[in-house]
Amino acid sequence: MKIAIIGGGAIGLLFAHYLNENHEVRVYIRNSTQLQKLRKKGLTTERKGIRSNAPLKAFHFKEWKGEEDLTIIAVKQYSIPEVVKDLMEMNTGKCGSYLFLQNGMGHLKWAEMLEAENIYVGSVEHGALKSEPDTVLHTGIGVTKVAALKGDVELLLKISDSASCYFPFIFAENHIEMLIEKLIVNCVINPLTAVLRVRNGELLANKYYYQLFLRLFDEVSGILGIPDKAGALTHVKSVCEETGMNRSSMLKDIEEGRETEIDAILGYILEEAEKKKMSAPYSESLYCQIKGRE
Amino acid sequence: MKIAIIGGGAIGLLFAHYLNENHEVRVYIRNSTQLQKLRKKGLTTERKGIRSNAPLKAFHFKEWKGEEDLTIIAVKQYSIPEVVKDLMEMNTGKCGSYLFLQNGMGHLKWAEMLEAENIYVGSVEHGALKSEPDTVLHTGIGVTKVAALKGDVELLLKISDSASCYFPFIFAENHIEMLIEKLIVNCVINPLTAVLRVRNGELLANKYYYQLFLRLFDEVSGILGIPDKAGALTHVKSVCEETGMNRSSMLKDIEEGRETEIDAILGYILEEAEKKKMSAPYSESLYCQIKGRE
Repeated sequence: MKIAIIGGGAIGLLFAHYLNENHEVRVYIRNSTQLQKLRKKGLTTERKGIRSNAPLKAFHFKEWKGEEDLTIIAVKQYSIPEVVKDLMEMNTGKCGSYLFLQNGMGHLKWAEMLEAENIYVGSVEHGALKSEPDTVLHTGIGVTKVAALKGDVELLLKISDSASCYFPFIFAENHIEMLIEKLIVNCVINPLTAVLRVRNGELLANKYYYQLFLRLFDEVSGILGIPDKAGALTHVKSVCEETGMNRSSMLKDIEEGRETEIDAILGYILEEAEKKKMSAPYSESLYCQIKGRE
Repeated sequence: MKIAIIGGGAIGLLFAHYLNENHEVRVYIRNSTQLQKLRKKGLTTERKGIRSNAPLKAFHFKEWKGEEDLTIIAVKQYSIPEVVKDLMEMNTGKCGSYLFLQNGMGHLKWAEMLEAENIYVGSVEHGALKSEPDTVLHTGIGVTKVAALKGDVELLLKISDSASCYFPFIFAENHIEMLIEKLIVNCVINPLTAVLRVRNGELLANKYYYQLFLRLFDEVSGILGIPDKAGALTHVKSVCEETGMNRSSMLKDIEEGRETEIDAILGYILEEAEKKKMSAPYSESLYCQIKGRE
């Protein structure tokens, strides 16, 4: 199958590596330094200390024409409006299939604007780190949960059937539930670790941080109207334990002075709270602390 | 007049310097390294780049017998319970006069336990920094507001009349109002600058930090039941502006890994909120962030 991947971040490169094993992958990126490096040196991947390298077809984003069977959109949530507008211009008249891999929920309304046969959304639970423009470390083997927003999952089934055992896909019935499950995890773990500058496990180990963790979980799950709060809390806690030694992506963004996904995460919660006329002081406090730093 | 000063921190040393000019001051401290240094080298004070040095009578805390006309208690709020218990044991049978210089309100109930002719409380609005065990920098010339909790202000009037123009005293009618005015300033500026790691002025200059500043002010002034909220806000903002380039004492405590006065400040607010069955999410969020670090 021909697969386009838009975005050369950790997730884009991780997908490129694993899907390239059984499909014809083309990566589309904007950064020309990274583009040259990938063309010249191929893509290097490291899993549990073992490195591998393979050639990768890399193109400038502007060269995308929607000719592939599936286009995977692996950019950050905050880039979605611009990317989707560009895709609509560049793919005049054609229909296609798209898989969106963003955190949060903000991309749904943009995804729905695309004229497409199939629109999928995915929630990536792998650990990945781009250590060089042409190198991705697969730091935690997880799953990619996928669901159809439009069309059927046939295309994804083909990909899943041929997927590496290190890169499994799981199909979810309800895309909203799937994204919300991830959103709660991101809402609680990411901002707290970023503001407190601690590893994920510290949120459970430190009694004051844990108090804050519970208050924030309570507020966020209330605003999102989660029916099974106890189950959701158990899930967030287990993610926090399993990734105890990890530094969250938002913490890394803060430490390296990059823009964070705070708007897609707590910004979304604040919008929902306003719509529902609910108060969100814990979310707002963390939101302002992170936005003020950016 | 004979004056005892308990505590060799920045405030204790600042009072020692200025009162020593016209009174017989004895400083009582626990740290024997500091004690030896003060005995050997005297007390050095710097104001606007000009240094002065004078001998200072320094004793170990255990040597205090309550023989002075006034005992000034210049320890941090969190040391008050221990210090007051020790003073009660050491001053068996005698009465005396005391001036308490703590932030917050927690010391009031301890001050009232002392058998004393006069009990005063003070709110210090000077900038002071202990750069060495025997050196204090007078970084901001302000005032000391004082009020009587018990007895009359005659003793303080004598001190005020003879005071340096760089070290004025102002008499307040209502000690609760006086302490609350300082408490609000400490509640808003100290925890925010400590958590965000910014200078005081940044709280007004950064729009997200300012949003947090307003929310926290609103919450704290509501819990304290301030009648003139607008006036109090103007006051906190003006302090923040005037001390714009300063790093707050709590920020310094956090940076240098010392215990902070957070329990005396936001801890007190949380207790008040609980008593009054009010919610205090902004205060709680900052309280947990600071306590978790300690």
